Amino acid sequence: MPDSQTRPQAALPVEELRRLLNAAFPEMFSSQGGLSILEIWHGGSRVRKAFAPHTLRPGGTISGPAMMGLADATMYIAILGSIGWKPLAVTTSFHINFLKKPAARALDAECRLLKLGKRLAVGEIWVHSEGEGDPVAHASATYSIPDH
Amino acid sequence: MPDSQTRPQAALPVEELRRLLNAAFPEMFSSQGGLSILEIWHGGSRVRKAFAPHTLRPGGTISGPAMMGLADATMYIAILGSIGWKPLAVTTSFHINFLKKPAARALDAECRLLKLGKRLAVGEIWVHSEGEGDPVAHASATYSIPDH
Amino acid sequence: MPDSQTRPQAALPVEELRRLLNAAFPEMFSSQGGLSILEIWHGGSRVRKAFAPHTLRPGGTISGPAMMGLADATMYIAILGSIGWKPLAVTTSFHINFLKKPAARALDAECRLLKLGKRLAVGEIWVHSEGEGDPVAHASATYSIPDH
Amino acid sequence: MPDSQTRPQAALPVEELRRLLNAAFPEMFSSQGGLSILEIWHGGSRVRKAFAPHTLRPGGTISGPAMMGLADATMYIAILGSIGWKPLAVTTSFHINFLKKPAARALDAECRLLKLGKRLAVGEIWVHSEGEGDPVAHASATYSIPDH
Repeated sequence: MPDSQTRPQAALPVEELRRLLNAAFPEMFSSQGGLSILEIWHGGSRVRKAFAPHTLRPGGTISGPAMMGLADATMYIAILGSIGWKPLAVTTSFHINFLKKPAARALDAECRLLKLGKRLAVGEIWVHSEGEGDPVAHASATYSIPDH
Repeated sequence: MPDSQTRPQAALPVEELRRLLNAAFPEMFSSQGGLSILEIWHGGSRVRKAFAPHTLRPGGTISGPAMMGLADATMYIAILGSIGWKPLAVTTSFHINFLKKPAARALDAECRLLKLGKRLAVGEIWVHSEGEGDPVAHASATYSIPDH
Repeated sequence: MPDSQTRPQAALPVEELRRLLNAAFPEMFSSQGGLSILEIWHGGSRVRKAFAPHTLRPGGTISGPAMMGLADATMYIAILGSIGWKPLAVTTSFHINFLKKPAARALDAECRLLKLGKRLAVGEIWVHSEGEGDPVAHASATYSIPDH
Repeated sequence: MPDSQTRPQAALPVEELRRLLNAAFPEMFSSQGGLSILEIWHGGSRVRKAFAPHTLRPGGTISGPAMMGLADATMYIAILGSIGWKPLAVTTSFHINFLKKPAARALDAECRLLKLGKRLAVGEIWVHSEGEGDPVAHASATYSIPDH
């Protein structure tokens, strides 16, 4: 993956995407949902989910659905960052492998689009515990996108 | 699928499972999370998710992560209903296809376990809009289960 | 699933589909590939794969790729049986869970289409050892289909 | 991914693994099956599938099942190269996204294990047309491995 210096420019400024998403999904980007965009570029994104006690499950680790929601949102943000504000893009399929139980801390996800066609986008998403090297989950997803 | 009359008995009474889950996952089974167990038997379960406006996304349909969370919980409940209270059972992989955009109403999910081994369980989960015939999503998942 | 009497009629006669597939995929439907169509209808298909010693793997069971190839072909045949001869339909994603090690005998697969849209089809496929009740594998797949 | 110089050493010499696989799967590594191991290390592998006309499908591209078989074999080889000759390791689930139609030439696959536990291994596999930059498919798989 290219480093930040060489990543191709997103289709819209990150501040504008933040503003649009906050308006469209007020709960996800609130302190309850805890999502924040770290970076977008043409072909990918990085998103953080703040730790929230209600996402813990027996065993003291973060629940699977919390990681699934983060991975799906990161892919959605990567698509919007690549083609602009097309909020009707929708997931058609989603697959995830859980690799390690995540500790009670923030999660960082990074999406890279593998294909960005006229009608379908495919991406992979890595999820890490904040500041840790080994991933806690690896997902891939397909989105149906409005013609662009 | 056998009808209710002939379904094999669950490993614990549904009321007891409700009580245990409410204690372990207070938010999921609260009015915020909106989950309620309709039925459990050895090998499967049916779970409802009440409609909540915060699960809507652009287009006026229920978000993918809301359906993923419901499907995963329904499988977890099917496992606990089959082997008893082993809350450390964890998802190892999850796959979902979205078939139709769900309207703004409750969702019903039904899980059937396809395999219940000593260490792994595999199941499929159908998600419907309440009262509608065609499914809105179809998922399959693998759980790692504590020895039993 | 409706029984044979009530299944909706396929888009073309099964004999014609056999002839077209034999011409397009000579190896798959030969004695080497071993595939034969048992039944097609609008929305589904049943396909058999004859046992072939070269598909065995250590442990004396049939290999995963042999089951994957059968499942994918069964879905392809279900699509062609539903929309007619559109051989350029292609798999965009495929997922399979292996449930049980299949003995050294023929495999039967049945596909049911869950969605047949203008551009995408989604289906699930069950694979059984010939004459046995419990499935050996459960797959789901998405196909991109030429406009129809 | 570390380059060849720094990759950790495989559990057995590549020549020995080739000999064992040729004996156990005579057809896959024959000129008909066309598989050859390019490289193994602890945690991964690279495998080539020679072009064979019988893998073509309508449209002149290589069939999905040919890519699935290559991806699954590459993961199997990565596991054996990491834990030694445990041929009873079996796939429990497999997922693949097809990204691009592969031309009529050899395919190269590279597997990287994401998790290598006592009982389960998870890996991702990239498939390329020989000599091309963009991948034609991306897969992930889970294997059940004999205790080691």
